[in-house]
Amino acid sequence: MPVLVMKFGGTSVANLDRIRRAAKRVGVEVAKGYDVIVIVSAMSGKTNELVGWVEETSPLFDAREYDAVVSSGENVTAGLMALTLQEMDVPARSWQGWQVPLRTTDAHASARIVEIPTENMTAKFGEGMRVAVVAGFQGIAPDGRITTLGRGGSDTTAVAFAAAFGAERCDIYTDVDGVYTTDPRITDKARKLDKIAFEEMLELASLGAKVLQTRSVELAMRYNVRLRVLSSFEEQSDTAGTLVCEEEEIMESKVVAGVAYSRDEAKMTLLSVADRPGIAATIFSSLSEAGVNVDMIVQNISEEGRTDMTFSCPINQVARAEQAMEHSRKAGALNFAELVADKDVAKVSVVGIGMRSHTGVAAKMFQVLSNEGINIKVITTSEIKISVLIDRKYMELAVQALHDAFELDKAA
Amino acid sequence: MPVLVMKFGGTSVANLDRIRRAAKRVGVEVAKGYDVIVIVSAMSGKTNELVGWVEETSPLFDAREYDAVVSSGENVTAGLMALTLQEMDVPARSWQGWQVPLRTTDAHASARIVEIPTENMTAKFGEGMRVAVVAGFQGIAPDGRITTLGRGGSDTTAVAFAAAFGAERCDIYTDVDGVYTTDPRITDKARKLDKIAFEEMLELASLGAKVLQTRSVELAMRYNVRLRVLSSFEEQSDTAGTLVCEEEEIMESKVVAGVAYSRDEAKMTLLSVADRPGIAATIFSSLSEAGVNVDMIVQNISEEGRTDMTFSCPINQVARAEQAMEHSRKAGALNFAELVADKDVAKVSVVGIGMRSHTGVAAKMFQVLSNEGINIKVITTSEIKISVLIDRKYMELAVQALHDAFELDKAA
Repeated sequence: MPVLVMKFGGTSVANLDRIRRAAKRVGVEVAKGYDVIVIVSAMSGKTNELVGWVEETSPLFDAREYDAVVSSGENVTAGLMALTLQEMDVPARSWQGWQVPLRTTDAHASARIVEIPTENMTAKFGEGMRVAVVAGFQGIAPDGRITTLGRGGSDTTAVAFAAAFGAERCDIYTDVDGVYTTDPRITDKARKLDKIAFEEMLELASLGAKVLQTRSVELAMRYNVRLRVLSSFEEQSDTAGTLVCEEEEIMESKVVAGVAYSRDEAKMTLLSVADRPGIAATIFSSLSEAGVNVDMIVQNISEEGRTDMTFSCPINQVARAEQAMEHSRKAGALNFAELVADKDVAKVSVVGIGMRSHTGVAAKMFQVLSNEGINIKVITTSEIKISVLIDRKYMELAVQALHDAFELDKAA
Repeated sequence: MPVLVMKFGGTSVANLDRIRRAAKRVGVEVAKGYDVIVIVSAMSGKTNELVGWVEETSPLFDAREYDAVVSSGENVTAGLMALTLQEMDVPARSWQGWQVPLRTTDAHASARIVEIPTENMTAKFGEGMRVAVVAGFQGIAPDGRITTLGRGGSDTTAVAFAAAFGAERCDIYTDVDGVYTTDPRITDKARKLDKIAFEEMLELASLGAKVLQTRSVELAMRYNVRLRVLSSFEEQSDTAGTLVCEEEEIMESKVVAGVAYSRDEAKMTLLSVADRPGIAATIFSSLSEAGVNVDMIVQNISEEGRTDMTFSCPINQVARAEQAMEHSRKAGALNFAELVADKDVAKVSVVGIGMRSHTGVAAKMFQVLSNEGINIKVITTSEIKISVLIDRKYMELAVQALHDAFELDKAA
């Protein structure tokens, strides 16, 4: 029988009533003839509570224990979902990550999936099980300890199962009804997209549109898993939500598909760094070892053998970045005058696969921001996106102006 | 290094502050040179919450899913306890049941421990780990699914680890400071015992003194594990609490060690049962199959081929017992005139290993109750205890009178 993967996020399984509603949707797909793999998150709020306990207990926690603690929320919803389906006479059972076993690397708290053996679960489907309910977000390291995949990791779990089982589609049920041209809370002109290309979704996901975890989109792109984002609170239909798919499937084609933003950015500048070959490698490997996720990097022109190095990172990693830089300075690996952190910045980006073949998008973006009197602090670009760092107070204005300028409220 | 097992119940790990207090106690034992195995329960209230969700979702739940859900609470406290110890610079790590692996039978929701391999954990102790924090109450069935040991199962987990590792002692930290001659809420003359014999504790545990789970005491007796019950809220010392140990270790020796009671009893009488060989077997195997825990049994003298059969069971199993008896009657296996249930009874017992060598305890007990005008409905005895069923309204009076009469407020 064809396999369908259905993933339910925290708000979709927030309580027993919501779990029942989600189970009914699963029942509809089972009735259509699918063998269904359901991936569940923890009830909304549970993982945050657990993370809070871990951080309060041990600010620099052992990630192995963090994983053991925070993975427990998904186990609860997996069991409850299986019981709910059984009550509906749908043969179902729960699987925890280690039972599959969903094998991962040993990078605790942000492990990557290595392998999902399909034999056991396929055998159970053969024996009459119609739904396998899998606890999302978790796996098992080579040494047998529990790992988690990082926040939002249940999306990645879902896509990985869809790839491993050759699923017809991977439906991600969440509390929004699809992917929008931008955040509807910022402008009511935001428009839901029927389809979006993997590459665009990838940029939007990594730029702060919190609908899907970046890695899940990467994985879907690599294995060509048709991914659908839809709301568990709206009418069930085969065309609801937004389909994330290959470029070729998309008929409508605008140069810019969406405007994304991220509020949680900080801009860090190392002033007067001794400029010698390998200095960038020193700085960024030190930051990497400290677990700082560096995003944008800008190096100013070198004068008299010294330069300024600017990078951005999530705002909650500023202390860690400062610590890493001070540590490198004390160890003699690095020489700089000062490290200046600007925590009042935001990142705004325009994304679209059409940018590959259309020029002038950057120029138009900068002109729009200039017209609004918004100063650009850092710029980075890729083939299909342009991002700028600006003062956080202008973020909403910038998103609205760009959404208007690129006419994203109108269908292609 | 010698091994010590320390078990912390739900109230002792109810929040992060209590976990820290418990961890400090563990640290004291580590400093003395022990390798410590810590068994933790779920934070108080958590398991009840999970059980509530399961029962609401599916009244006749699949016990395998029940186990998957309700075992999650212990995983949280195990990880948090390990992190807390690490913060105190005590090398510690958490182990979930399946990681040990603590192998059990496949009797989900009330599994029995089959084996605890010690190699892995012993190796970790050899590598410098000083504390293994184990999630109590859970294990793994032969088919790889999670099992739980029944309510209070963390005590059993603790004793089983103490036996497997040849621990010097198994300390059960709870919210009471030891085992008392009777419930201090019934009489303020109740006195804490310094030591109590396994056999006595077993009778007290199964008679309703809720300090320790019966199975944990059985296991401790079988493997001669010195078991100490003490409060996690009092000053730490080597002589705190009550030591449950072999008879030979106990110097003070009174005929009666304690008075126990149980409120949740019901007396059931089958009137005019056709008395033929095998009739008792028919009745009690039918009750057993229905999951009724029969305690006392009394058969009256047979007259004209008919007899009355009386038994007691927990009050919440009365409906089940009635159903089983009706079922047997309809099936033609049993013939009786009426089944009378008396739900207003309580059981009061005196327990003491001294009763083996002293006569007259029963006579004294009956006299005391008679002096108070309390009618005895059913009597059962074992080598070291005498139990009577009386009207529930006299329960407290009976306990107080017996406690006084056997002078339990005075040390031996």
